[in-house]
Amino acid sequence: MSNSTKITFTRLDHVRKVMRNMPLSDAASVAGARERNAQLTKPPGALGRLEDLAIWYAGWRGNERPMVQAPQVIVFAGNHGVAARNVSAFPPAVTEQMVMNFQHGGAAINQLARTFGAKMDVHALSLESPTADFTQAHAMTEIEVCSAIQTGWDAVDSNADLLVAGEMGIGNTTSAAAIGMALLGGDAADWTGRGTGVEGTALHAKTEVVAAGVALHAGKGDGLDALMALGGRELAAMAGAILRARALSIPVILDGFICTAAATCLHATQNGILDHAIAGHQSDEQAHERMLFALGKKPLLQLGLRLGEASGGALAIGILQGAVACHSGMSTFAEAGVSEG
Amino acid sequence: MSNSTKITFTRLDHVRKVMRNMPLSDAASVAGARERNAQLTKPPGALGRLEDLAIWYAGWRGNERPMVQAPQVIVFAGNHGVAARNVSAFPPAVTEQMVMNFQHGGAAINQLARTFGAKMDVHALSLESPTADFTQAHAMTEIEVCSAIQTGWDAVDSNADLLVAGEMGIGNTTSAAAIGMALLGGDAADWTGRGTGVEGTALHAKTEVVAAGVALHAGKGDGLDALMALGGRELAAMAGAILRARALSIPVILDGFICTAAATCLHATQNGILDHAIAGHQSDEQAHERMLFALGKKPLLQLGLRLGEASGGALAIGILQGAVACHSGMSTFAEAGVSEG
Repeated sequence: MSNSTKITFTRLDHVRKVMRNMPLSDAASVAGARERNAQLTKPPGALGRLEDLAIWYAGWRGNERPMVQAPQVIVFAGNHGVAARNVSAFPPAVTEQMVMNFQHGGAAINQLARTFGAKMDVHALSLESPTADFTQAHAMTEIEVCSAIQTGWDAVDSNADLLVAGEMGIGNTTSAAAIGMALLGGDAADWTGRGTGVEGTALHAKTEVVAAGVALHAGKGDGLDALMALGGRELAAMAGAILRARALSIPVILDGFICTAAATCLHATQNGILDHAIAGHQSDEQAHERMLFALGKKPLLQLGLRLGEASGGALAIGILQGAVACHSGMSTFAEAGVSEG
Repeated sequence: MSNSTKITFTRLDHVRKVMRNMPLSDAASVAGARERNAQLTKPPGALGRLEDLAIWYAGWRGNERPMVQAPQVIVFAGNHGVAARNVSAFPPAVTEQMVMNFQHGGAAINQLARTFGAKMDVHALSLESPTADFTQAHAMTEIEVCSAIQTGWDAVDSNADLLVAGEMGIGNTTSAAAIGMALLGGDAADWTGRGTGVEGTALHAKTEVVAAGVALHAGKGDGLDALMALGGRELAAMAGAILRARALSIPVILDGFICTAAATCLHATQNGILDHAIAGHQSDEQAHERMLFALGKKPLLQLGLRLGEASGGALAIGILQGAVACHSGMSTFAEAGVSEG
């Protein structure tokens, strides 16, 4: 697949076909990075996970001595039909209000993107048309989900060297919980959490919405089918962005529960499709740990965030920048005239 | 105590007196920062530990809306008499070789300091004169330990707004282990780890050196006495830098096991003396977790580093920068026109 070929998705089978033909990590760059790592002025293994991160990044960039110079953060926003069922502590209008806040630079993710030198883009997806209530119908038609995947696919800057995709969407932890239960099993209570702050009877009602959605849609098809039935436009867009990053060999830092749910839809469709992605931060939203475990991803950070909007992933950009800077900038024992142990 | 008064330490009692007269966190700034935090465009608590970090930082800076603009990283290097007992996988000459590497920009800490925009300074402390073997005598005389504390005290830039102090010193995990055992109890095996990579019989021998040192010196005096008896010049200098930062109301991020051992000497001398310090990274050196627990410090990161040289603390600078940037840069609900839940 050429990177310059314009792809237009109108059917999920087309997405599936693209997912079966993705680039792999460059084995020669991994080998070269491993060799370099062994010569750097530190005891073997003394940089811990930073060493693994740098070697992983080198493989995806096809460069045994890379730098992180152009991180891109993208926030996708969508509205959810299930929000009418009072699954959130905030009214649906907040989705659009927060999009304005992102555009004016006032949200947490704006500050984090600036802190780590990342370009930030915001895409609002048909906010005036919430998805259908997934307890009654598919959240999206095939055309709608493909259009949202397309938005994510097209949003990735081909000159970026790192991607963090995040989201805003009142009601979307309900969607993510339903995807988790449908694709990974367990009970609705295992997957349903407080989101923006629902508790007590509201949390119980949210759990029942998740169970009803899964009862209607589970067991029919693969991860992309679950994305269409239970997801939302911003989840589909994150999935599309993660896929485009893979097509461009751009490493990805996953954000929180909703981003990881979108990634789980990809994982359940095509094994290995998330090899270019790491987990940035384990959310305080209770089911995120379970979902990351199912994906085999160990988070870099665990600081109690439960905000979404790419904030946890963005916070981890600095860790990756530090890891890659050490790998590529340090002297070898020979260069520095330091005795090896 | 005026910040501009030049202090010269020649007796530990003078250090103790200074430690009893230190500034506290500014309560009005903490209250103002809490109030601001509650108005920011996010669900309450959704930034997790970042919120606590920003409020803590605001208190120490005396500013309810601060920024982290001038972080300083200082690496202190010293040589240890116990290194002659083969407690390290590397020869003692590596201390000086690594100082050259720091000065030439080739070490891990150089890359991390640059990544997070920190100024970096290196101080080599009398490398030609290792401390005495603490299994035979006090590691340092009172004049020597005071001189090293002085070096650390004087090394802090009064214009810095964040300090990370770290170290290099072949043999110094042995010193840190002895301090841990002497001040916090337990067995030598609880505190003695692989350091740069000692294993098997070498690790057993290292454990016996720790036990012998503690048998000779434990139970005599306070934390500063333990620093003199079992420490090293770089540990004393880190202690001095942490104290000067407190005198200047500069928040501190503690580095790994050896830095934390130096901090433990302060903690064991004066309760509350580390209130301006947080733990950056929990080292893979086994006893660091136990030591941080004793200090009541929960690390921000746990990424398997065991390198020292301020690397774990420096990696956490980005987390604090992100936390403070969110706190001070985000819009309030009223400013952004976002509905509250």
